[in-house]
Amino acid sequence: MNDPLIELRDRLRVFTQEREWDRYHTPKNLAMALIVEAAELAEHFQWLTPEESQSPQDGKRARIRDELADVLIYLVELADALDVDLAAAAHDKIAKNALKYPVEKARGNAKKYDEL
Amino acid sequence: MNDPLIELRDRLRVFTQEREWDRYHTPKNLAMALIVEAAELAEHFQWLTPEESQSPQDGKRARIRDELADVLIYLVELADALDVDLAAAAHDKIAKNALKYPVEKARGNAKKYDEL
Amino acid sequence: MNDPLIELRDRLRVFTQEREWDRYHTPKNLAMALIVEAAELAEHFQWLTPEESQSPQDGKRARIRDELADVLIYLVELADALDVDLAAAAHDKIAKNALKYPVEKARGNAKKYDEL
Amino acid sequence: MNDPLIELRDRLRVFTQEREWDRYHTPKNLAMALIVEAAELAEHFQWLTPEESQSPQDGKRARIRDELADVLIYLVELADALDVDLAAAAHDKIAKNALKYPVEKARGNAKKYDEL
Repeated sequence: MNDPLIELRDRLRVFTQEREWDRYHTPKNLAMALIVEAAELAEHFQWLTPEESQSPQDGKRARIRDELADVLIYLVELADALDVDLAAAAHDKIAKNALKYPVEKARGNAKKYDEL
Repeated sequence: MNDPLIELRDRLRVFTQEREWDRYHTPKNLAMALIVEAAELAEHFQWLTPEESQSPQDGKRARIRDELADVLIYLVELADALDVDLAAAAHDKIAKNALKYPVEKARGNAKKYDEL
Repeated sequence: MNDPLIELRDRLRVFTQEREWDRYHTPKNLAMALIVEAAELAEHFQWLTPEESQSPQDGKRARIRDELADVLIYLVELADALDVDLAAAAHDKIAKNALKYPVEKARGNAKKYDEL
Repeated sequence: MNDPLIELRDRLRVFTQEREWDRYHTPKNLAMALIVEAAELAEHFQWLTPEESQSPQDGKRARIRDELADVLIYLVELADALDVDLAAAAHDKIAKNALKYPVEKARGNAKKYDEL
C-alpha cells in the first residue's frame, strides 16, 4: 500500500509543473490560498448552530467534500514547498499536545484550549 | 505500511475521547479552529516578499512546521466528523481541476486561477 | 465633529510614514494581515456556544476590543491603499443587500444568507 | 456632520431587525462571517505579486470595493453586539502600538512586526 500523502504530493507536483504554475506557488501565496479555502469551508457552517453543523444538507455535502479536498491540496503543496513531512509533523505536535493537556487536567475542559 | 491519514485519525480519536472534548468538536467549531490555524501559519509570511517566503529563517522553521501540523490535525478531525475520506476527496478534486484547467490553456497563466 | 474613519486614516498614514513601513503596506500584504487579525478575533469564540459568545468573560473583553481595533486598522489602511471610501462602499453594499434580501422573503430565514 | 460608524451601526440594526436576523447575529457567528469576508477580499490578491496588487484590474475594483464593504459591515455588527466603540478602540490600539514600536527602533524594519 502506498502513502496517500506522498501520492498526493507527487501527483500535485506533476499537475503544477505541466501548467508551469510553480512560479505562483511560493509559500506566501500557498499560505494565502490555504486560508481562502479554509474560509470557503467555514462559510458552509457560519449560520448553523453547532448541532446543525453535524448533519449538513445533502445538497451541501458534495461542496463541503470539495472544500476539504482544496484545503488538503494546498496544505500538501505548502508542506512540499517548505520540505516538511506533514505526517511526522502532526505526530510530533500530538505528542506535544499530550504533554500540554494531560488527560486528568484537560478532561471536559474547553478552557484548556484557550492556551492552544 | 499503514495509511498515515488513517493512523492520524485514529490517534486523534483517542486523544479527543480521553479528554472528553468530543462535545466541542462539532464541524462548525472545527472549521473555525482550522481557519484560525491556517491564519497562524499565514502570519509567518505576511510581511515577506514571495521570494523571501521560500526560505524562512531557521528560528521560524520549527514554528511553521507546528502550524502545518495544526492545520492537518483539524482537517483530519473535521473530515472524520463529516465522515469524508480526505485522500479520495483530494484525488477527485484534482481530476476535476485537470478538466477545468487543461494543460494547453492553463500553462503559465495565473488568471485561470481566478475561476478556481 | 470630525469623521472618525478619516481621522483614523490620517493618523495611520502618519504612523506608517514615520516608521517607513509603506513598503510593506501593499494591498496583498494588508489583506493578509487583515485576515490574520480577523482570525485572532474569531479565536476567542471558537470553542464557545453561540450563546456563550454573547457575554465574553471580563478577562477576555479587553483582548477582544484590541482585536476589533486591529481589524479596523488594517481595513482602513487597505481601503486607503486602494483609494476606496469605506463608508460610501458600505452604504452602497447595504442598498444592494436590501434589494437581494427583501424583508418579506428574508424574514427569519438564514437560508437566504447562503447566497450572500 | 454625522459619525459614519454610528450611522452604519444604526442602519444595520434596522436592516437586521426588519429581517429578524438577530438570532443569527451572535458574536461567534459574526466573527466567522467577518473572517469569511476577509478571505474573499484576500482571494483577489492571492496570486498577484505585492506590486501587482497595488493596481487591481478595472474589472476587479468594484468587487474588491464590495468585499471591503462586507468586512466593515460585519465588523460594525460584531462591535455593536459586544458593545464596543470601534473608533475609540482603534485610537487606543494605535497609542499602544506607538509605545511598542518607537519610531527610532521600528524605522524600515519589518521584523518588529513579528511581535505585533
